[in-house]
Amino acid sequence: MNFVSDNLAGASAPVLQAMLAANDGLAAAYGNDAWTKRVEALFAELFEREVAVFLVTSGTAANALALASLVQPWGAVLCHHEAHVAADECGAPEFFAGGAKIVGLPGEGCKLAPEVVTDQLARMRPDSLHQVQPQMLSITQATECGLVYRPDEIAALKAAIAPRGLKLHMDGARFANAVAALGCSPAEITWKAGVDVLSFGGTKNGAFAAEAVVFFEPACAAEMPWRRKRAGHTLSKGRLIGAQFEGLLADGHWLGLAGHANAMAGKLAAGIAALGNTQLAWACEANEVFAILPEARRDQLKARGVQFIDWSDGALPAGQGLEPGETIGRFVCSFATRPEDVERLLAIFAEA
Amino acid sequence: MNFVSDNLAGASAPVLQAMLAANDGLAAAYGNDAWTKRVEALFAELFEREVAVFLVTSGTAANALALASLVQPWGAVLCHHEAHVAADECGAPEFFAGGAKIVGLPGEGCKLAPEVVTDQLARMRPDSLHQVQPQMLSITQATECGLVYRPDEIAALKAAIAPRGLKLHMDGARFANAVAALGCSPAEITWKAGVDVLSFGGTKNGAFAAEAVVFFEPACAAEMPWRRKRAGHTLSKGRLIGAQFEGLLADGHWLGLAGHANAMAGKLAAGIAALGNTQLAWACEANEVFAILPEARRDQLKARGVQFIDWSDGALPAGQGLEPGETIGRFVCSFATRPEDVERLLAIFAEA
Amino acid sequence: MNFVSDNLAGASAPVLQAMLAANDGLAAAYGNDAWTKRVEALFAELFEREVAVFLVTSGTAANALALASLVQPWGAVLCHHEAHVAADECGAPEFFAGGAKIVGLPGEGCKLAPEVVTDQLARMRPDSLHQVQPQMLSITQATECGLVYRPDEIAALKAAIAPRGLKLHMDGARFANAVAALGCSPAEITWKAGVDVLSFGGTKNGAFAAEAVVFFEPACAAEMPWRRKRAGHTLSKGRLIGAQFEGLLADGHWLGLAGHANAMAGKLAAGIAALGNTQLAWACEANEVFAILPEARRDQLKARGVQFIDWSDGALPAGQGLEPGETIGRFVCSFATRPEDVERLLAIFAEA
Amino acid sequence: MNFVSDNLAGASAPVLQAMLAANDGLAAAYGNDAWTKRVEALFAELFEREVAVFLVTSGTAANALALASLVQPWGAVLCHHEAHVAADECGAPEFFAGGAKIVGLPGEGCKLAPEVVTDQLARMRPDSLHQVQPQMLSITQATECGLVYRPDEIAALKAAIAPRGLKLHMDGARFANAVAALGCSPAEITWKAGVDVLSFGGTKNGAFAAEAVVFFEPACAAEMPWRRKRAGHTLSKGRLIGAQFEGLLADGHWLGLAGHANAMAGKLAAGIAALGNTQLAWACEANEVFAILPEARRDQLKARGVQFIDWSDGALPAGQGLEPGETIGRFVCSFATRPEDVERLLAIFAEA
Repeated sequence: MNFVSDNLAGASAPVLQAMLAANDGLAAAYGNDAWTKRVEALFAELFEREVAVFLVTSGTAANALALASLVQPWGAVLCHHEAHVAADECGAPEFFAGGAKIVGLPGEGCKLAPEVVTDQLARMRPDSLHQVQPQMLSITQATECGLVYRPDEIAALKAAIAPRGLKLHMDGARFANAVAALGCSPAEITWKAGVDVLSFGGTKNGAFAAEAVVFFEPACAAEMPWRRKRAGHTLSKGRLIGAQFEGLLADGHWLGLAGHANAMAGKLAAGIAALGNTQLAWACEANEVFAILPEARRDQLKARGVQFIDWSDGALPAGQGLEPGETIGRFVCSFATRPEDVERLLAIFAEA
Repeated sequence: MNFVSDNLAGASAPVLQAMLAANDGLAAAYGNDAWTKRVEALFAELFEREVAVFLVTSGTAANALALASLVQPWGAVLCHHEAHVAADECGAPEFFAGGAKIVGLPGEGCKLAPEVVTDQLARMRPDSLHQVQPQMLSITQATECGLVYRPDEIAALKAAIAPRGLKLHMDGARFANAVAALGCSPAEITWKAGVDVLSFGGTKNGAFAAEAVVFFEPACAAEMPWRRKRAGHTLSKGRLIGAQFEGLLADGHWLGLAGHANAMAGKLAAGIAALGNTQLAWACEANEVFAILPEARRDQLKARGVQFIDWSDGALPAGQGLEPGETIGRFVCSFATRPEDVERLLAIFAEA
Repeated sequence: MNFVSDNLAGASAPVLQAMLAANDGLAAAYGNDAWTKRVEALFAELFEREVAVFLVTSGTAANALALASLVQPWGAVLCHHEAHVAADECGAPEFFAGGAKIVGLPGEGCKLAPEVVTDQLARMRPDSLHQVQPQMLSITQATECGLVYRPDEIAALKAAIAPRGLKLHMDGARFANAVAALGCSPAEITWKAGVDVLSFGGTKNGAFAAEAVVFFEPACAAEMPWRRKRAGHTLSKGRLIGAQFEGLLADGHWLGLAGHANAMAGKLAAGIAALGNTQLAWACEANEVFAILPEARRDQLKARGVQFIDWSDGALPAGQGLEPGETIGRFVCSFATRPEDVERLLAIFAEA
Repeated sequence: MNFVSDNLAGASAPVLQAMLAANDGLAAAYGNDAWTKRVEALFAELFEREVAVFLVTSGTAANALALASLVQPWGAVLCHHEAHVAADECGAPEFFAGGAKIVGLPGEGCKLAPEVVTDQLARMRPDSLHQVQPQMLSITQATECGLVYRPDEIAALKAAIAPRGLKLHMDGARFANAVAALGCSPAEITWKAGVDVLSFGGTKNGAFAAEAVVFFEPACAAEMPWRRKRAGHTLSKGRLIGAQFEGLLADGHWLGLAGHANAMAGKLAAGIAALGNTQLAWACEANEVFAILPEARRDQLKARGVQFIDWSDGALPAGQGLEPGETIGRFVCSFATRPEDVERLLAIFAEA
């Protein structure tokens, strides 16, 4: 019963098969192979427009490269203060962007509201030599607390930043889960709502190590070839990533995997709600469930061998906190989570 | 007949099999998986001592992380002026090391002689505030021109830098080819000869994307966990690299692959010598053959569909240059090169 | 009636005289001149211990060099969220420190309390690869809101960070004002209370462009010669800064100037209190007065030609905010402020 | 008899007077003062066109900011291998430009020939992801060996780089000496010949610490306000630099000072030539004399108390080297050098 993260399983069978099939023969190096070229075309099709795509092997690399491409060293990136780019990448964005500043903002469930962004921008004087200049807003879809932005919410955020010219980045480590949950097209939830650059995650959704930086305005990607290369992220045998994405994108496999993970999390959340003995910290909108655990409950779960991690209370609704002894447990479902895993967990929750 | 590079083939069958076998089940993330742990132990065994090992997916990442770990932003890395770290990594070492300087030195066949290093050091004043401080010597084994350093040659280089306290890095993108050629132990050609940190290459020798930074003095690796993470090179599903190395290191597979590649190159070089109509730019000591091609010969090879790349004449012996119209063709053999590929190429060379 | 800042006046007469006197003859370059050497000895005397001193021409340079010397690129500096290093140096610390992170904390009047620091540290996991590592606490003395830390308060902060090994930096752009206000020795308020490195400000206190980075543990300064040089802050004619400090430090001139500035601010604060019609945002403890200004009062002051700047309300006591229409006006006194300037301002405050 | 450098004297009397006169009263901070504004206008007048001017206190800062403004982190700056930016600034350009590469080229007397630049560019593949991209040529006027580029020579260099789009930077630490020597207008030797950005030196020519970065295409300077601030080079009391330049630029004072320094060097060179017993390494075209000194001559000069520094032999004409025991002595004249200093030195040279 391991619900620690969605990065613990290997690759899905079709992805693994695609990797296997890609092994034969010689192929041009450094992303000039046929797999990568086909994947670039698949992304254009998926997003219904011309895009510039750069494949890498980690989400941290994807995010840091995306941010560095559109933010100057004296620029600032606004994001939630618990966003992965702010809190979990050991300063990778600052490293790649030559010392740019990540400005953390509050928001329930790690979602940002337009007013919060507008207020922050009002406190950052344009043209002041003394302050870093806001140049990007980064949002996470689904968020670190498992919530999902709707297209109109993203459009509202874009409207909040447009007067100051900020670009909009979406950290889509769990983009597939969000799209599966929303039931909208990838285009609707990205560039049609104002997203300029997307980190399209594959690793948490059935790939082994496959992430794509997708620029919806290809001209913005002019620097990327050099940025990626000098960061050591231009693989010589690029088909290794290309093949994974080809496996993922074929026949909607990526959405199928994400839909399954979402369904498992939904089943878990619904089961907990039906039990009525445990409160969720945030609604379950994608593939993660966050449960508020009294100390005894946490101990019981651990004693029964359930694996999960304690989560921060920093994105609870304003004014709502944990009681003494309570913690938040994060339970993540992935493409590899089986219904019986969820059922076993629910059975433990059902105990006193 | 593609002799462009040794990074065009996929993975060897045993490596692919190891990747496949590693796919099942859940595994701890970020390099805490069993595969990575086993590989760390395998490296200690291979080098007959305690080592600190960090797996990454590209040689550029391995080199840049190794250099940045032991060189300050105001430090200088001495190396051959055509070394990969100087000429082919788009400034990755400078990026990772916060602006350190790469100082290129001359040397026949991309090999450095101790006198050249000593002379350069004499021109760099210790303690001068105005100059970057030499802190590392980086050598490539086998070199970019396919030559191999013997243990005594490496020891002599270490002796040249020891009085000034420089560390010795070995870019071992083709380390396997060098070890196979020398017939010595990995320990003899590295730490026993004075190497402090090694980029151990797997990608050019049967892996898909697997390189290891090996510190022979583990204390020197204290910063690496953070350096690697913030560069986006700490894969969440680390077993992807671990499994490749497990496949490579098992039963001397890595040396078998390299030995084959060397044998193919040796067959090609010997065949050319036997023909007597083409001069080699440098001796064939590992898996590469560099032939001096008059214009007609180059045209003929291209016309017959032989794929190879033109190589720099910057490391020819001092005073020895190309005649007008001549170029240097690089022919690389890999684990996947077949004897019949070499024979077909030799047949073309045999033509007038 | 210009109360905008204490960086608007030129140099005090003795400082200017010292600069004038330093002009004659040839002198060794790059800080090897007699003035700089004498000033290094004066600082050792002033702080009653061996120190390593580096003179520069701006406070931003002093702070950024101090931070970069003791924080790694993956390190974090804790400080008040309105500290100069966080909010007014356009990311200089991030630039100098290779992308380190500045973590802003709350605190009334820009003063940090030990509990706030302790709480923040508890949220930063030691040894996590995913998070930057806290390595320094930076406090401002006097703070950006004109408050002063007592020696015991600084010792308490040091006690809060000592278990995690953070270094303590003091941004002393207004160090002289703080020392004059406290009436303690420079040693008591710095290294004896736990400060590791001090930015000793001269520019706001009678110099033209003179700041000193003072390391109380000289071994910590080993990198500074190269850091300063490659930042362009090692002046060839170093006596320009040396002479200013020689003028400042002679005969306690620096404390006399600061005492005067403090007295002028104290006179202003006392006068406003006596009038009883205006509330101060924070107590006047050094050379700055922050008045809460209803809109009509602000308009009146501006109309009468009083120059001052609007200040942030971000460091008001928790739960205490401005009424609609209210702003905070900052009134700064310097060595050049005359009693009659204060009296004229008070006369305007006395008006309805 | 100190001929070590032209950075050992203080300020010229008019410059010191201007500094003194600038001390009175309050002035706007951060370069918004009247002195700085007047100097900006003076530079526009001097160069007969609109310019963007940024004042700083060191030549290293001026050069590094100029380079970083026009070169990306994966860019390369071509320059002479003994250029100050390559050899004497401790990696400042690499630091400011985020790890860009300085590529050193050969050239007699530290002058670059168009063919050398063209050859180097031919070796740098455009659009290669593996190599840094050449983006700037930096030349030094007068060179580190005291030679002067004529306008046509600069135009030829510009013609060599124009097809690849490189910008042209002039390190003018001794720009005044070059202009005084050439007798041309500042415009003719800069933007009219193709220079894009100039480091205009004041410190070596009568100022205490005053350098200007002059962009001839103001649009290229858009980033400079932030770059300068975050490097700590935006002085709060900016009039300190403004006043020095006002003193220098008034009534051609800067050219008068440089002309004197050149005359002193010319007198020294002519005197040595007349003696006929010492060979010069390079022609004396500005304010420096480089003499080839047999060991006995060097010992004699040192014994007689003549101060000078040993210079590199790296820019001697190709194929022409020093005899065993010979060194090159650099003798620099400044605005403060007196005829009798030169005469005393010549008298010593006249001795056997």
